[in-house]
Amino acid sequence: MIAEIIAAGSEMLTPHRVDTNSLYLTARLNQLGVQVAFKTIVGDNIDHLTSAARVALSRADIVLFSGGLGPTEDDLTREAASTALGVELRRDPDLLAALYKRFAARQIAMPPNNAKQADVLTGATVLDNKNGSAAGQYLDTTLWQTDGPALRRIVILLPGPPKELKPLFEQSVEPLLRATLPPSFFATRQLRMALIPESTVDARTSPIYKQYPQVETTILAHSGEIQLHFLAFAPTAEEAQARVDELSGKIEAEMDDAIFSSNGDSLEEIVLLHLGLRHLTLSVAESCTGGLLAQRLTSIPNSSRTFLGGIVPYTPELKTLFAGVPPALIEVHGAVSPEVATALAEGIRTLTGSSIGIGITGLAGPTPGSGLDEPKPIGLIYIAIASATVTEVKEVNLTGDRERIRWWATQHALELLRRHLL
Amino acid sequence: MIAEIIAAGSEMLTPHRVDTNSLYLTARLNQLGVQVAFKTIVGDNIDHLTSAARVALSRADIVLFSGGLGPTEDDLTREAASTALGVELRRDPDLLAALYKRFAARQIAMPPNNAKQADVLTGATVLDNKNGSAAGQYLDTTLWQTDGPALRRIVILLPGPPKELKPLFEQSVEPLLRATLPPSFFATRQLRMALIPESTVDARTSPIYKQYPQVETTILAHSGEIQLHFLAFAPTAEEAQARVDELSGKIEAEMDDAIFSSNGDSLEEIVLLHLGLRHLTLSVAESCTGGLLAQRLTSIPNSSRTFLGGIVPYTPELKTLFAGVPPALIEVHGAVSPEVATALAEGIRTLTGSSIGIGITGLAGPTPGSGLDEPKPIGLIYIAIASATVTEVKEVNLTGDRERIRWWATQHALELLRRHLL
Repeated sequence: MIAEIIAAGSEMLTPHRVDTNSLYLTARLNQLGVQVAFKTIVGDNIDHLTSAARVALSRADIVLFSGGLGPTEDDLTREAASTALGVELRRDPDLLAALYKRFAARQIAMPPNNAKQADVLTGATVLDNKNGSAAGQYLDTTLWQTDGPALRRIVILLPGPPKELKPLFEQSVEPLLRATLPPSFFATRQLRMALIPESTVDARTSPIYKQYPQVETTILAHSGEIQLHFLAFAPTAEEAQARVDELSGKIEAEMDDAIFSSNGDSLEEIVLLHLGLRHLTLSVAESCTGGLLAQRLTSIPNSSRTFLGGIVPYTPELKTLFAGVPPALIEVHGAVSPEVATALAEGIRTLTGSSIGIGITGLAGPTPGSGLDEPKPIGLIYIAIASATVTEVKEVNLTGDRERIRWWATQHALELLRRHLL
Repeated sequence: MIAEIIAAGSEMLTPHRVDTNSLYLTARLNQLGVQVAFKTIVGDNIDHLTSAARVALSRADIVLFSGGLGPTEDDLTREAASTALGVELRRDPDLLAALYKRFAARQIAMPPNNAKQADVLTGATVLDNKNGSAAGQYLDTTLWQTDGPALRRIVILLPGPPKELKPLFEQSVEPLLRATLPPSFFATRQLRMALIPESTVDARTSPIYKQYPQVETTILAHSGEIQLHFLAFAPTAEEAQARVDELSGKIEAEMDDAIFSSNGDSLEEIVLLHLGLRHLTLSVAESCTGGLLAQRLTSIPNSSRTFLGGIVPYTPELKTLFAGVPPALIEVHGAVSPEVATALAEGIRTLTGSSIGIGITGLAGPTPGSGLDEPKPIGLIYIAIASATVTEVKEVNLTGDRERIRWWATQHALELLRRHLL
């Protein structure tokens, strides 16, 4: 069974908006054993939408529309599906009554246009939408094609807003698809690593995962993180899990402590978890990353149990005031130096009384440094980690724009801390 | 003239990747006066890709492929376009020589498969790719259909990596399209506002922009910001600019100082600009936003001219240590209080010697506050702005998850500072 997703909406044909519902729908359909073979994005134009619907019905078993179920003239999915399928729309009295009720509750008269939200493909099941006025629809053509064999098509109409589409899919569409599709059991696992080149991960893991053609392996690289996703289908849930676990176990043995999580936890979460388990606290003094490291750590709920606080000393004076960095150290070595990174880490640790202190200094660009740092290259970063017994400092040379350099600097700091804690 | 963009690549039919090249291509095509009517995303499957190509050729004047031009078995765009068009592929000797040269330079023998990257649709112009091995192709069917009238189609093949696709489009495709399409002159403008409901902006501006049907107006709302985009086409560049400017001027008069920029500058940039023009400096003390405000300000190049630094005092002790907040104040009012926000703003200002200090304290959730703050609702935020002469404090009640509450809190702080500076 293959599916096509049609996203209806002129806004997705502008330079500003991309269809993201299909990512969610694809994940859900995959779990039901259905592959998505085509995605079509089409504007609010009846000819274009009908053409897209006809094409999809000609090549996919399941055609899933998102959007175009509102009450305005631009909402044309019902009409397009009706024309493409050759199936009449009928006005559903229960839906119509519910629409009148919605308006009555708000003490507004319903505009006549809105009645079209009660139009349903003949033979379709109405899917109740608790979060909006646009009902979903589900039509399985085998259920009404009694005169001999015909192409079986499942046509699904869902509203565009994710807050309406997702509950409708999970509560109404999934049970219907599950009841009609062959049973499908799947298992997934995700291994996450930081700062390793994708090609290195692939070179080391592909000899292993290629031995498991029954497990779908996907490597994703993004922002200094590599994710290995495993997905397996099997006649039972246990068997699917066993397949995924066997492959995952072998890859974990190969990549060893390069893997920071196997359950979906982020690098920030893992670092805070390791600190918490050891009853350690953390503080940070970050110059070039400007608060990004503190922000990433505090984005995790309950980080306050472990993270005491941070400073962003953007001037030499504040490096002295908030982290006790001796002015002479900055004058001699420049602010971007291993000495200043060390002093920031040790200073913030001492001042806050935390178990561990992190210091970051560097040049994020695009403008060059000033004073002693002026000849140093953009992308040069020093990261120091200080504990009661030892301070380690690392030099990193990053490329790219300011945003990328700052992000990767925090990624290096988190990974350095994780390895420090191992 | 309408266009269809076909993005080829199985990775875009997984739950992990979305096609973003089409946003760039849409913006560029729109500027040439071409509307994108369909986008199709299709996997690396010769039947599916050929079907998508056939459909596109049947309904769009310009068919633009991205991806599928690599050397592997999965790279099928050349073959699919050839079959759908009914045009043979020819092996281009110059391209083939260039491929051999690329490999020779790296002292590797070229695998025989790679020769297919030299295959070109008969009649197509080869577009030189300086950033990769996959050449682009441009075929205008009118140029070889001499035997009477036929459907005119422009078929463009571009490699998928954005770093190859964008320069190829700008350097090779745009000049070719410009030479063949009717001249098109456009102008754009963008007005940006913070923290106003989209419905309010629409209610106040739609009576104005509806009087300008020749200007395409788009309202985008995202993360506490509203953007109004205007786009106009005209026979001359001056006329297009005049149309956009006239409408923009009227909307600026209506929305007045709610508009923070009309030239694309972000809220962070505008706040730093206003501070810089007045020779003012800034420091921040943020608790619940955890460094996000400092991070947003320091994401702007040269922010160090204005932004002295920040603190993230995540414990009561650090609020006292780094911003001089009296412990009694926290004990009496709780950390989430207008009093503590005020003390943070005034304290960080005094300590750093900045012209202006900002203090933020609040509950970002999802877990409730502790101690005195425990009964206070999640989403309650206090923001204080202190200058030499006055301190103002604002209470904000936000909804949503931790990430949203933290972002909106910084959005309120920036907008409050902007209005403070007006």
